[in-house]
Amino acid sequence: MEKISLQKIKWIKSLHLKKNRDKEKVVLVEGLKLVSELAIQFPSLVHSIYASSDITESLQTNFDCYQCSENEMERITQFYSASTLLGIFHEPAAKAFNPTERVLVLEGIQDPGNLGTIIRTADWFGIKQIVCSTDTVNMFNSKVIQSSMGSAFRMSVFYENLGEFLQKMNTVVHGALLNGDNLADIDPNEIKILVMGNEGKGISPDIQKHINQAVTIPGYGQAESLNVSIATGIFLYHWSQSKS
Amino acid sequence: MEKISLQKIKWIKSLHLKKNRDKEKVVLVEGLKLVSELAIQFPSLVHSIYASSDITESLQTNFDCYQCSENEMERITQFYSASTLLGIFHEPAAKAFNPTERVLVLEGIQDPGNLGTIIRTADWFGIKQIVCSTDTVNMFNSKVIQSSMGSAFRMSVFYENLGEFLQKMNTVVHGALLNGDNLADIDPNEIKILVMGNEGKGISPDIQKHINQAVTIPGYGQAESLNVSIATGIFLYHWSQSKS
Repeated sequence: MEKISLQKIKWIKSLHLKKNRDKEKVVLVEGLKLVSELAIQFPSLVHSIYASSDITESLQTNFDCYQCSENEMERITQFYSASTLLGIFHEPAAKAFNPTERVLVLEGIQDPGNLGTIIRTADWFGIKQIVCSTDTVNMFNSKVIQSSMGSAFRMSVFYENLGEFLQKMNTVVHGALLNGDNLADIDPNEIKILVMGNEGKGISPDIQKHINQAVTIPGYGQAESLNVSIATGIFLYHWSQSKS
Repeated sequence: MEKISLQKIKWIKSLHLKKNRDKEKVVLVEGLKLVSELAIQFPSLVHSIYASSDITESLQTNFDCYQCSENEMERITQFYSASTLLGIFHEPAAKAFNPTERVLVLEGIQDPGNLGTIIRTADWFGIKQIVCSTDTVNMFNSKVIQSSMGSAFRMSVFYENLGEFLQKMNTVVHGALLNGDNLADIDPNEIKILVMGNEGKGISPDIQKHINQAVTIPGYGQAESLNVSIATGIFLYHWSQSKS
């Protein structure tokens, strides 16, 4: 396995900036298990792989692999502590939006861990497409990929002007709001589009105008709110009880 | 407001180590909103407060407050980026375990963000006590407090030998396992004790012996698993449908 060059180190460090990843249309992924699995599932998307420990023959023979010292890994990682494997992948190609399929809509999710977890949970429950407001964190952010456990590579995620999108869809829209109807009383078969709002502020007044059915998860304790990815998980679980 | 002394800075930095916090029986909390809210809700637990920005009169008159420069905040923070407010609180007193009350049991949760989110979610759904295996992350870890949004101060959390605990409880035990019965088919009124397992490994074989009813959240997509805090959120939501 060839040793990583100083030039490559500089190039990978340049990819820590979103604008450079966007220009090259690549995604940085870190972690032994995650990089290995994504390389196996999406071999055509692998650009190159960087390892500070032994890696499988299969990775070495199929992909462009480079050996790094631990010190070099610490230089190229985006995280506080480096893993032993870093992969650079080509951005998965955008998929076509299917207007007849269920849609999860996210407004202004800021935390990459939350977006990643929501994508993973949606993938678990068979949701295939997510529409995000343009101020939602980028789905190719490394922490999103990381916490999605790779589901971000499978999910169709679109960034849209939500007001225009919901207008255009012209169907009933369910949204997570305080003082809505109890989720348990909502027929999951009726849900076509579900909107979840920002971590602190929820769904904005502008987008609330498009919500036809406000829905709430009743609380019985003292916590002020639920984390947005937990709330989304509960909504998606309820939605998964539908017969379609 | 008195300026922070070099001695205080050294003392707070020493509290970054669990053994020193344990010795002094204190908890470090960071963040403007969280520290302010906890100080209001639990005034008797406030030891001292450190601020690099203006703080309310009420905090200043009621508590031992010290002024810090941004640079000093960066020295005392436990996190990658410092907030403008850091509070040192006395550990909330341990509460008594109530054997007739519902219990959430956690085995080997490692990630402080997961434990904090689970505590917050349990608090939302009115669960009052959590029993953790002794290898579960410490509930007074700052990241647990942070992601619990303060619910960790309200929740009764016990660290126990789980095998002995479940044996002693002598009642039906529900546990989250693959290939269990569908959660939707479980009568929430029947659940008294619910066991959730470790992030990667789930419930260990030793503890599985004590599970009388294995329960599963069916997946319909391609994700390999659900995040443990999401799964716990869904279980607690289902449990909250009980009539008790």
